[in-house]
Amino acid sequence: MDQVHIYDSTLRDGAQAQGISYSVEDKVKIVERLDALGVAFIEAGNPGSNPKDLEFFRRVGDLTLKHSRIIAFGSTRKVGIRAEDDDNLRSLLEAGTTAIAIFGKSWDYQVTHILRTTLEENLAMIGDTIRYLKSQGKEVVYDAEHFFDGYRANPGYALQSLEAAALAGADCLCLCDTNGGNFPDFVGEVTKQIAARHPGRAIGIHCHNDCEMAVANSVVAVQAGATQVQGTINGVGERCGNANLCAIIPNLELKLGKSCLPPNSLIQLTSTARFVSDVANIPHNEKAAYVGNDAFAHKGGMHIDAVTKNPVSYEHVDPELVGNARSILMSEVAGRSMLLARIKLIDPTLTRDSPEIRLIVDRLKELEHEGYQFESAESSFELVVRKILGRHRPHFELREFKVIVNEPSSNGVNSSAIIKITVNGQEELTAAEGDGPVNALDKGIRKALERFYPTIREMRLIDYKVRVLDSDKASAAKVRVLIESADHDRQWATMGVSTDVIEASWRALVDSIEYKLMRDQERGG
Amino acid sequence: MDQVHIYDSTLRDGAQAQGISYSVEDKVKIVERLDALGVAFIEAGNPGSNPKDLEFFRRVGDLTLKHSRIIAFGSTRKVGIRAEDDDNLRSLLEAGTTAIAIFGKSWDYQVTHILRTTLEENLAMIGDTIRYLKSQGKEVVYDAEHFFDGYRANPGYALQSLEAAALAGADCLCLCDTNGGNFPDFVGEVTKQIAARHPGRAIGIHCHNDCEMAVANSVVAVQAGATQVQGTINGVGERCGNANLCAIIPNLELKLGKSCLPPNSLIQLTSTARFVSDVANIPHNEKAAYVGNDAFAHKGGMHIDAVTKNPVSYEHVDPELVGNARSILMSEVAGRSMLLARIKLIDPTLTRDSPEIRLIVDRLKELEHEGYQFESAESSFELVVRKILGRHRPHFELREFKVIVNEPSSNGVNSSAIIKITVNGQEELTAAEGDGPVNALDKGIRKALERFYPTIREMRLIDYKVRVLDSDKASAAKVRVLIESADHDRQWATMGVSTDVIEASWRALVDSIEYKLMRDQERGG
Repeated sequence: MDQVHIYDSTLRDGAQAQGISYSVEDKVKIVERLDALGVAFIEAGNPGSNPKDLEFFRRVGDLTLKHSRIIAFGSTRKVGIRAEDDDNLRSLLEAGTTAIAIFGKSWDYQVTHILRTTLEENLAMIGDTIRYLKSQGKEVVYDAEHFFDGYRANPGYALQSLEAAALAGADCLCLCDTNGGNFPDFVGEVTKQIAARHPGRAIGIHCHNDCEMAVANSVVAVQAGATQVQGTINGVGERCGNANLCAIIPNLELKLGKSCLPPNSLIQLTSTARFVSDVANIPHNEKAAYVGNDAFAHKGGMHIDAVTKNPVSYEHVDPELVGNARSILMSEVAGRSMLLARIKLIDPTLTRDSPEIRLIVDRLKELEHEGYQFESAESSFELVVRKILGRHRPHFELREFKVIVNEPSSNGVNSSAIIKITVNGQEELTAAEGDGPVNALDKGIRKALERFYPTIREMRLIDYKVRVLDSDKASAAKVRVLIESADHDRQWATMGVSTDVIEASWRALVDSIEYKLMRDQERGG
Repeated sequence: MDQVHIYDSTLRDGAQAQGISYSVEDKVKIVERLDALGVAFIEAGNPGSNPKDLEFFRRVGDLTLKHSRIIAFGSTRKVGIRAEDDDNLRSLLEAGTTAIAIFGKSWDYQVTHILRTTLEENLAMIGDTIRYLKSQGKEVVYDAEHFFDGYRANPGYALQSLEAAALAGADCLCLCDTNGGNFPDFVGEVTKQIAARHPGRAIGIHCHNDCEMAVANSVVAVQAGATQVQGTINGVGERCGNANLCAIIPNLELKLGKSCLPPNSLIQLTSTARFVSDVANIPHNEKAAYVGNDAFAHKGGMHIDAVTKNPVSYEHVDPELVGNARSILMSEVAGRSMLLARIKLIDPTLTRDSPEIRLIVDRLKELEHEGYQFESAESSFELVVRKILGRHRPHFELREFKVIVNEPSSNGVNSSAIIKITVNGQEELTAAEGDGPVNALDKGIRKALERFYPTIREMRLIDYKVRVLDSDKASAAKVRVLIESADHDRQWATMGVSTDVIEASWRALVDSIEYKLMRDQERGG
């Protein structure tokens, strides 16, 4: 089976998208998920242009990755200096990766009018840079920016620029459709020619979606001989986005018999796609090929009838191959067998026909209809199931809370919370101040519980995200709050939904605390 | 210039999408817009399967359309009856259109296993139906459902099914990738063969996006000889959607020199796309090729620099050709010259060297560092600039507010706000209740202002978004609130940032109100 190397740029080119801004922590989490999925390369940032990226490369150096190699990305040396003296190249080397991607110009117009140097100097910049990086023991991917546009304008010069990279020892020549303006016929034809001119050297393809053709162009390039495909999870990227790996990978594996991921990894595709949307805090595209909720949803009566007779009627692939599910009967909830597997982790005695299963499915449907999304909040999922199975005893009960927000604030503290809870019949009333109402509530509830459950001190909130669900309802819209918590050896995620951000936060907070106390109890007894 | 006939199915196949449901009124409005855009055909519904559609066809018969012809859509006659006796065909004729589209089976498996009849009877169903409709004077488009899958499975039978339609006099043979599972190489090759077998007869293409290839497949089919392209505005449709006409039309006109729309119509594309999103009540895809807000947006510093030097650097076409516009994002990376242009809109006397410019830049940097992102909140940007230039007089002053949130809530109202403001020295104290603290504040401040500024009643919040910025700080994280507001003739966006979601919402709300009152005042004189 032919191998295609998947080169993910979610954290570099994908981070150029409008509204995307990752913390170092976010980036580390995404690297871990991409490694688990099994992409060959993770292009993680440009250490020369962004000091935050350098910090990230230090962090990521400590991770032990199973499948992926990290790539630092940067440009060729500046005009008129030695590669050894270029600050950007120094930062690239400092990032400490084993592989580096370098982009350079292949379009004569870009050289003379944007870079404003000579065609000869540009070739020297490409060659010098790659030779220098090779001398430092790096694997080098050469990204030929604007390659297809350049080839159309001046094929001779575009070919020369690749030649310069190849002569200097580039391990991969990646052809970029930087403006996203090219069509499959041209991309296929040109890629074939380049592959023939550079036998034995890897050819890559990097497409943008400005004509809504990035996926097709990438696949056609593979059919023409490319063995490395650059893109991003969910196609996130500047303008109309980069080539969408979540469509390209299953297209190549399921339709062309290529091998892109380690065996049995494709099934993680849908959950990885949703995970990245959540970390980026952008709504997941539910119409996305393969990984959207609607990708295998059937509405038309005739279609449902036919799909029930045989799925091949209106499904081009089996949704389970990509970790997705057909949705007809159990609309919002993922396939019952998948669900059953998860429930069995909590109670292994249950079977497909247990009456509890129906109750759980109904409850989950109800909650998903309200806006819950258990994909990213497994601890809330577990609590829902345990409650229905009678396997959850709450550790405390809320009597009431009151939160007061004052403006103007004094000393940066504008909120106070008064919380009354009972634990085994004992009442506890506390108050806490905080920076905002959620912060005050968070402090208050822990303070109230400390007396009964001292381990609560170990727990801390590490992530807090808010998403507005039906945003056209303006200030009375529904919001979904996702909280991630951790103690010394675990990390867990919980969720709350309400029209009120305070109440949604409270629900997620309560689930988070209950989960912590439940796990502590299991361990203790 | 080669003519390609655009066949819009937004109101038929597009209406199969999850969450889409048009009223008759909606459909009439969309027909009028599609006619103004100038598509050749509007497939408007299936009168046989949906009585609401029959009412609609009566309504639409009264319209005078300039460019488009309406098509009624239905299936071949039922198994074992005469076409003349088929109820669905009767409804189709009753719809009173001059053209009719009929779908039939081309995949042997579908005939024997889904339709459950013989291969011969299926051919007779296709032939009889089309002959009958032709005898009634109709123009007939034959949609060969599952054509590409059928051709792969049994090419002989797939060809026979087209032959049956052609012999019966079908005016167009439309090849459908019903499951959306085919790739450009196969679609192109098969379309070429079919076009060669049926010289002089129109060949159509109808694709679905399950492999994210519908646009590419449609374009490749045109390159192979198809002259009719079926699709929907914005690619709306069942599962992953239909082929997106908003990408296909400019791809064909601007890149392949085909003629799809009447002269000078392409410029309506972006507004038509937004209009359909609005009527369908779905968020417009801002990353959409050609017609999204982000399609020509530039963020990276290098890209902005190059685009300013010459747009062709990072733009594959001129955005104005499709009625869109370039947008340069005002993030940290954006250059000073772009900023100056925007400031000059507010005060044209300023130059690059005015001392005010430095003050503004410093203040914007400070705010962006705090988490403001003015690219999506131009009204807040304008207010910042006006404040520094001394060109903004606040319409009210907040003395204090207090918000109280109670849990458990009573009657779904859990929050109350007390607000004290002054307007020209006059004090106003009001209280309001709401579903959540932001809703209570929103109601309270408008109530307080109504006495002084009655036009405030025209204003409404149409969108409310929360993003957590440094989410690793958990419940004390910084949040950014983006509010979109509208009155009868304007729409504007404002932003607030704070560690407290209430305060951030308040700031965005105040900017929104100030912006409204400022514009009203300018108009008033």
